[in-house]
Amino acid sequence: MAGSLQLIPLVDFPLVEPGDDLAQLICTSLAYNALDLTPGDILVLAQKIVSKAEDCYALLSEVEPSAAALELASQANKDPRQAELILRESREVLRVRPGVVIVEHRNGYVHANAGIDKSNISIDQQDPRVLLLPHDPDKSAAELRRALGTRTGVTPQIIINDSAGRAWRNGTVGIAIGTAGLNPLFNQVGERDIFGNVLEVTEPAVADELAAAASLVMGQAAEACPVVLVRGAEFPEFDGGSTSLLRERSMDMFR
Amino acid sequence: MAGSLQLIPLVDFPLVEPGDDLAQLICTSLAYNALDLTPGDILVLAQKIVSKAEDCYALLSEVEPSAAALELASQANKDPRQAELILRESREVLRVRPGVVIVEHRNGYVHANAGIDKSNISIDQQDPRVLLLPHDPDKSAAELRRALGTRTGVTPQIIINDSAGRAWRNGTVGIAIGTAGLNPLFNQVGERDIFGNVLEVTEPAVADELAAAASLVMGQAAEACPVVLVRGAEFPEFDGGSTSLLRERSMDMFR
Repeated sequence: MAGSLQLIPLVDFPLVEPGDDLAQLICTSLAYNALDLTPGDILVLAQKIVSKAEDCYALLSEVEPSAAALELASQANKDPRQAELILRESREVLRVRPGVVIVEHRNGYVHANAGIDKSNISIDQQDPRVLLLPHDPDKSAAELRRALGTRTGVTPQIIINDSAGRAWRNGTVGIAIGTAGLNPLFNQVGERDIFGNVLEVTEPAVADELAAAASLVMGQAAEACPVVLVRGAEFPEFDGGSTSLLRERSMDMFR
Repeated sequence: MAGSLQLIPLVDFPLVEPGDDLAQLICTSLAYNALDLTPGDILVLAQKIVSKAEDCYALLSEVEPSAAALELASQANKDPRQAELILRESREVLRVRPGVVIVEHRNGYVHANAGIDKSNISIDQQDPRVLLLPHDPDKSAAELRRALGTRTGVTPQIIINDSAGRAWRNGTVGIAIGTAGLNPLFNQVGERDIFGNVLEVTEPAVADELAAAASLVMGQAAEACPVVLVRGAEFPEFDGGSTSLLRERSMDMFR
């Protein structure tokens, strides 16, 4: 971690359509941006482009709201079809207020509206569609990591990020919903600080910190810059995904 | 926000002692690191060095635990004197489990153990001392901003960060506990995305995202690199501190 950290946006990244090969788009965009992958690089991708490539759209016209969705829609003042999608995408509804439904997403993260997004997708008013989160972002990240390794000879670490609200604090921050190749928690428990005291519990969620940093660079209109290259972090290789970021319900004091 | 974001650690920053002039230390360290402040620069400081410069130490031998502190210490399995300090530094205790006390700090943030820190301070076993958060981090940030402006002719934006645990997710992330000169929430409500849809609610907590990014660069042994220069963000000037990051209790679904 000595030295600078650089976050480089891949500018003019193309709009992503269902079926697109993200590894190929990224390689083309790296070349366009006069960049080569180098060992230690991390690529952070906005969730939206992964969902689009994987065709995670849902047409509201094809959604039949259940009785539970009608009830939720009424409580939350939402379109019943959107409420139905939120329920389908969730394990549990944690809180409901007008305009907001906080759930545990089927992938485990606590997220408003199950991460279902209406912004930055072209809305055909005749038949509006919404964009769901990727089916399995850790798998998406791992596949992209492999594909980029094959194409370029360098295997970058991958983070798929999303903007998320939080308890206690206003505003959204980028969080990691999928990772490949890096340990999302940098476990320093038992190491010593510079005075020789044993660090008691210090487990920075580095994947979330990287996701937040990249989110700054992506800006909010993420389609315009949905991929950020992070250089200089140099985290050790890790074989696994992002599930260690999710606090077990039994350990969570704030549900 | 076009272009790269660079996070540059001020290496070999000296150990900070009570009464030290942080503006002077930073100027000396910038020169040592062959850096000049330029307009748009943001400096992120670890809370710890601000607390040390402001002598926010407390000697445990001088703390007399109240009855409430004895009760809290018993519930949380903590030193009663530390429990007393947590209570003094807090408005309200939100949750208690063995080893963990989650409070609303007197400055408004929800924080474990009221942010009281035992790591990276030299512990005299005869008379251990702990480090409290700065009395008013927004004021500390504003004063540093002014002092640096006077000294260098360039007035950087300032963030004081700390590592904080979160609801729902494991690991800590850097958050902003004090800011000066930048709007901690980048309000985009009402702007349009690239498809012309009105962005409904998009308010990135940019100060927290910057705090998280800098936290990565500081690493956990923050004394070794407690100041990070962020270049390339270029947020508009803002006259105010960080209180907009704090969700009002009445608006918080997770207390």
